[in-house]
Amino acid sequence: MELRTPRGMRDFMPAQMNARNAVISVVERVFRRYGYEPLETPALENMEILDVKCGEDTNKQIYRVEDGKLGMRFDLTVPLARVVASNQSLPKPFKRYCIGKVWRREEPQKGRFREFLQADVDIIGSSKMECDAELLACASECLKKLGFKDFRIRVNNRKILDSIITGVGITAASAAVFRTLDKLEKIGEKGVNDELVEMGVGKDSVKKLMEIISQKGDNEEILKNVGGYGENGIRELEELVALCNTYCLENVSVDLSLVRGLDYYTGPVFEISAGGGVGSIAGGGRYDNLIGVYSGVDVPAVGISLGIERIMALLGEGDEKSCVEICIAAVKPEFYPNAIAVAQELRASGMNVQVDLMGRNLRKQFDYANSKKIMFIGVIGQREAEKDMITVRNLETGEEKVVSPKEVRKIVWGE
Amino acid sequence: MELRTPRGMRDFMPAQMNARNAVISVVERVFRRYGYEPLETPALENMEILDVKCGEDTNKQIYRVEDGKLGMRFDLTVPLARVVASNQSLPKPFKRYCIGKVWRREEPQKGRFREFLQADVDIIGSSKMECDAELLACASECLKKLGFKDFRIRVNNRKILDSIITGVGITAASAAVFRTLDKLEKIGEKGVNDELVEMGVGKDSVKKLMEIISQKGDNEEILKNVGGYGENGIRELEELVALCNTYCLENVSVDLSLVRGLDYYTGPVFEISAGGGVGSIAGGGRYDNLIGVYSGVDVPAVGISLGIERIMALLGEGDEKSCVEICIAAVKPEFYPNAIAVAQELRASGMNVQVDLMGRNLRKQFDYANSKKIMFIGVIGQREAEKDMITVRNLETGEEKVVSPKEVRKIVWGE
Repeated sequence: MELRTPRGMRDFMPAQMNARNAVISVVERVFRRYGYEPLETPALENMEILDVKCGEDTNKQIYRVEDGKLGMRFDLTVPLARVVASNQSLPKPFKRYCIGKVWRREEPQKGRFREFLQADVDIIGSSKMECDAELLACASECLKKLGFKDFRIRVNNRKILDSIITGVGITAASAAVFRTLDKLEKIGEKGVNDELVEMGVGKDSVKKLMEIISQKGDNEEILKNVGGYGENGIRELEELVALCNTYCLENVSVDLSLVRGLDYYTGPVFEISAGGGVGSIAGGGRYDNLIGVYSGVDVPAVGISLGIERIMALLGEGDEKSCVEICIAAVKPEFYPNAIAVAQELRASGMNVQVDLMGRNLRKQFDYANSKKIMFIGVIGQREAEKDMITVRNLETGEEKVVSPKEVRKIVWGE
Repeated sequence: MELRTPRGMRDFMPAQMNARNAVISVVERVFRRYGYEPLETPALENMEILDVKCGEDTNKQIYRVEDGKLGMRFDLTVPLARVVASNQSLPKPFKRYCIGKVWRREEPQKGRFREFLQADVDIIGSSKMECDAELLACASECLKKLGFKDFRIRVNNRKILDSIITGVGITAASAAVFRTLDKLEKIGEKGVNDELVEMGVGKDSVKKLMEIISQKGDNEEILKNVGGYGENGIRELEELVALCNTYCLENVSVDLSLVRGLDYYTGPVFEISAGGGVGSIAGGGRYDNLIGVYSGVDVPAVGISLGIERIMALLGEGDEKSCVEICIAAVKPEFYPNAIAVAQELRASGMNVQVDLMGRNLRKQFDYANSKKIMFIGVIGQREAEKDMITVRNLETGEEKVVSPKEVRKIVWGE
């Protein structure tokens, strides 16, 4: 029988899970500090919810269930939009975080899986750039707390891109043009050129478009040189950059070639990358029309998503030591009740404790603790049992000490 | 458009999530104290993994994906068995916990959903009753820490049941008999009688069976009166009950009518209930043959699962206050940078903080904090900005105090 996980999906063994949980708990703590509250939605959604606005490419990647009536969520934003659309009396702004799995049936490759974890913060109900800036500050803080130093935040605005596209005389559907532009890093400028020409865009228009969006320089310069396209969008970016300064974010640059893949963005879009060959580690943007698609009433909204899988790929997984802090070993079966009593006392004081469950001799219990990289072992024999003591041995240094159960924490936690 | 979640599946709004997260974190902490380590597997499994051993009824409830090649997991035990079968060098015992969603396409009813959360601890690699006792101690500790007082642990052993069934002359497949016996609480003794007779079991056999399994009395008595059936099973239960005493568990009773629904159990089975009309809140047992089905090599294993949904139903969800501790309000837009600076300082000190993101006047910011049941609001106007101070108001008591940002924690946390 084939014992593997489905293609592109993974098991996480304890050492990996400990590393993942450490990252998740840092991220969740920062999200809560910034005043975001948890919301959870099902793994499955009615297909007509997912069908809307995800774009053709993503649509093909949805895992369908129950004769295609249901689908597995491919992001955390669409379910959020449904919740907000069906709870119109929610106090605004509604600030929610969600750390959850999503599923996309695409070709697995380095750092890309068919089941992966996203960590999102979104603000619903305000069109102010204060929101967009706060999201960038919050995501940056997560990355800093995780130890990232050289990450780069790029921002752009779909309003500017829309205006440029029309302005240079492109009549093709903007969603299709965006999808092609989004491949710039992947297929290069020539590739994008060719694809646009193939779509029927005139060579002149392509040339003008590429000239404008590939401008380099400082933020002010670029925004001044856009040349009158998308004035609202420019104003928003100017405001956003200024607010990022208020948050002391020094690594924000306007990049007119930044697009983002999903169809539902309407205003500022952003992306954070940290090198390492895994692409962006966070991305998001405004989607002021998405909720309206469901409820008929537009509600401004903006969000950012941290790609936990890519972050893990950069931080490195595994190799964490066991979360078990000490093994309690009875020298003979008659001391097992003593071992349980000591274990229960240590657990009550907050320690992660194992007791032998296989009736093994002492040697084998030592081997087990060593193989699990558990650092301490506490031995209970005749001598210890008589005095309510325990011999604690550090398996790394070989140091040994006979102590009362109360004193074990001093040794294990170095208090 | 239909904006509802799929049938039997739910959204969890922030107040509910805060209550759920509180329960999950208590459970996870206890699991770790007992030396269990986290393991995660995908939501989807190859269908041939799920097909094995789950039993006919459960099989029908599996959500099938990708033309039935994949299925959504219906419990956390089968994926664990796959992981162990495909990693035969794992040090034993392998003690793992997993808190995760599972999916079953059954009729939703009170406390029963199509997507629900299970919290499992399992011990792989030891056939000793020390394991079974530890699991009951660990589950009991979770329930006590969650505030449950009057819960009852019932234990039985499939070996005894197997022996009784053969002994009273029943030749029908034991799995089918077990499934019927498992309905005892649901359809009553008469219902079970009728179903067994319908299956072709002789009335005499049914009568004898029901007489034996419905015995009441203290644990020793019951085990003495089983009448020679399943001697190994009896010895295991005697040992288990004695070990439970070592753990000071006083609410353990042998109940020969306890079966548990799943097909894969081979030895002791257990169930914990706390009344309240939601059935059992935890259950599990030994499944010494399940891993062998996958790898060809039997590995002893035992586990227990806490039903988080039923626990939530008994504890009551929602009504928790917001996890946001304070809102910072700027009296005029010009003080917004001050508001951000204060918010960042409070966040760095560990507080959950919101800053207005909608450019609202003070009245509206107060209304918002009230509607979200956020307890404190910190106001920054001309006077405060000049002195680097902030006016903190308790929205419940109306008390107000002008303090430096450093002193806010004293007020909010009552330090």
